[in-house]
Amino acid sequence: MTKEELFNIKNGGYSEDVYKEAAAEWDRIAKPLGGLGVFEPLICRIAAIQGESVPDISGKALIIMCADNGVTEEKVTQTDSSVTADVAELMTRDQSSVGVMCRDCSIDIYPVDIGIKEDISFPGLIGRKVRHGTENICKAPAMDEGDALAAIECGIDMVELAMEKGAGVICTGEMGIGNTTTSTAMLCALTGEDPEALTGRGAGIDDEGLRRKKDAIGKALELHGYGLGAHRNPDPAYALGVLQNLGGLDIAGLVGVYAGAYMHRLPVVIDGVISAVAALCASCIIPGCGQNMIASHTGRERGVKLVLERLKLHAVLDASMALGEGSGSVMLMPLLDMALNLYRYGTRFSDTDIQQYERIPLKG
Amino acid sequence: MTKEELFNIKNGGYSEDVYKEAAAEWDRIAKPLGGLGVFEPLICRIAAIQGESVPDISGKALIIMCADNGVTEEKVTQTDSSVTADVAELMTRDQSSVGVMCRDCSIDIYPVDIGIKEDISFPGLIGRKVRHGTENICKAPAMDEGDALAAIECGIDMVELAMEKGAGVICTGEMGIGNTTTSTAMLCALTGEDPEALTGRGAGIDDEGLRRKKDAIGKALELHGYGLGAHRNPDPAYALGVLQNLGGLDIAGLVGVYAGAYMHRLPVVIDGVISAVAALCASCIIPGCGQNMIASHTGRERGVKLVLERLKLHAVLDASMALGEGSGSVMLMPLLDMALNLYRYGTRFSDTDIQQYERIPLKG
Repeated sequence: MTKEELFNIKNGGYSEDVYKEAAAEWDRIAKPLGGLGVFEPLICRIAAIQGESVPDISGKALIIMCADNGVTEEKVTQTDSSVTADVAELMTRDQSSVGVMCRDCSIDIYPVDIGIKEDISFPGLIGRKVRHGTENICKAPAMDEGDALAAIECGIDMVELAMEKGAGVICTGEMGIGNTTTSTAMLCALTGEDPEALTGRGAGIDDEGLRRKKDAIGKALELHGYGLGAHRNPDPAYALGVLQNLGGLDIAGLVGVYAGAYMHRLPVVIDGVISAVAALCASCIIPGCGQNMIASHTGRERGVKLVLERLKLHAVLDASMALGEGSGSVMLMPLLDMALNLYRYGTRFSDTDIQQYERIPLKG
Repeated sequence: MTKEELFNIKNGGYSEDVYKEAAAEWDRIAKPLGGLGVFEPLICRIAAIQGESVPDISGKALIIMCADNGVTEEKVTQTDSSVTADVAELMTRDQSSVGVMCRDCSIDIYPVDIGIKEDISFPGLIGRKVRHGTENICKAPAMDEGDALAAIECGIDMVELAMEKGAGVICTGEMGIGNTTTSTAMLCALTGEDPEALTGRGAGIDDEGLRRKKDAIGKALELHGYGLGAHRNPDPAYALGVLQNLGGLDIAGLVGVYAGAYMHRLPVVIDGVISAVAALCASCIIPGCGQNMIASHTGRERGVKLVLERLKLHAVLDASMALGEGSGSVMLMPLLDMALNLYRYGTRFSDTDIQQYERIPLKG
């Protein structure tokens, strides 16, 4: 994929008419108007994205981008890079955390080696290694432009693979020691925010580790020319530069997942801070692609709320989670199923003696 | 049940040791420490309530208390009382909103006629009518003390019935036109808050209806002697009086459900504002019974957040829902199942090469 092809990705479609049809359908269900709260417009959006007034999300895919980050050299993490490969292996046996959580759900998990440092190969691990981890962003660009584009293309391919296998909704996940450092650095470069305020403890570092992490992010921002308040309305080329300089291959892969969902009319669910920063980056590179995004949870890292504000999305789950692997995005799935059940099968006012509620213009 | 028996209900048990065991078990799972956020202490609490380090919530019951409210005379609602009976009938055929939402979940629904105005009888509707709706709280006490005690006893009985059928967790729900008025009135009397600030639109009334609703609540508070700021640390007798003067039979029934859960070591899930006010009232009547309560969602009515603050509980769902029937409490069920899956079946550090995270004392 060339840079021009990336910047010219087109919307697969979004139907305002279907949104309106779905909203009207909600009002026919025998319950208080708007009673299901934010789940009502959420189902309307999914319908508009798919272009069907009765959307189909029975097929669910979780794409987990796994990659290592050179910045772990700076001692910004509690464990070392080998854990990325170890957890990726567990994923192939449904024994990683998210695999175990979803054992009773019908969610297909796609673990992707998009840039794990070690050479590994397991049945079920999708081998799409772009490179063996990134460079240390405190010393060099994380990757070159070709690598970033290849990783984005991989994300698009994964969406197409999941779609061929029947997915109607895509969940995003990642695994990569060091990726709360890279994502926070990117978030600062994309928003001009201060790493002092945004940097969190990731998987749980101590106070000295947190100090090193903030310093590393500051150093990387300085090295690559992203000073405080540098650029608050990043254009596509700027955002791609941020991804290449500061990102991880997991983040680049997720940018591709958001791009692919936008191309192919699939709703795509944001997980925690890494996934959220990829979503923000994707929406800078491909303006409009935020239309297909759904928030799931606020997470423990401060950056998530900032991204969701920028994307004008509301997360229904507020549980201070910091597990990664897409564990928050999959938790939204049973809730969407319950909401869609009501939308599809709920008793209509016309089938009862119950008087329909009226939408009343409110003054207050 | 006498008042003395009610005030002397004892804790079925709660094991701090089991809580600690469960917390230690979480730390053995190969994931970031505390990564599942608030779901980790939630599972620990459920374990402590049940007294088993591996809690069992496979059996799930939703108890829906259905009752009418005399205060609908004051035109505080958009629909009339007949809707209570209509929806209760739908519940018996799993065609009410919550029944449809849960069609793919294994949740047993117990709809209870604890005070519907009409005489109705359907297979599946549990007939425990205490009286045919309440009096208009703007003109008289809602019910007498004997009725309140009978309704509370019914709630306890329902918990025992659900427990006999294998429930390990109880969800609370209600149906009763006018019950955001009664619950808000009770909340003001229990907390001393101003109805001007707390009164919401319920199922969706217009501005004039909202004015009438606030006025009706103010009138009822005045009539029964609950002025602004009257009583902020209500004792058991005071709280029972509030229930009797201002409550609904649905709320009284739910107070019994919380009491029963406390007696029988069952976790019990709070739904929206009506269920939340019942929870607050129960915790005033039986100090300590908040130990068994779990929050689910914040809801659209302002009162929910106030109650959860008082009970020191955090709702993981933030979706502006206002549907009733226990629709928010059941949405927590698949999330607890996912969390418990991870707790029970998650890969332990000892089964991997991954280095265990250490709990580090944090200065910051």
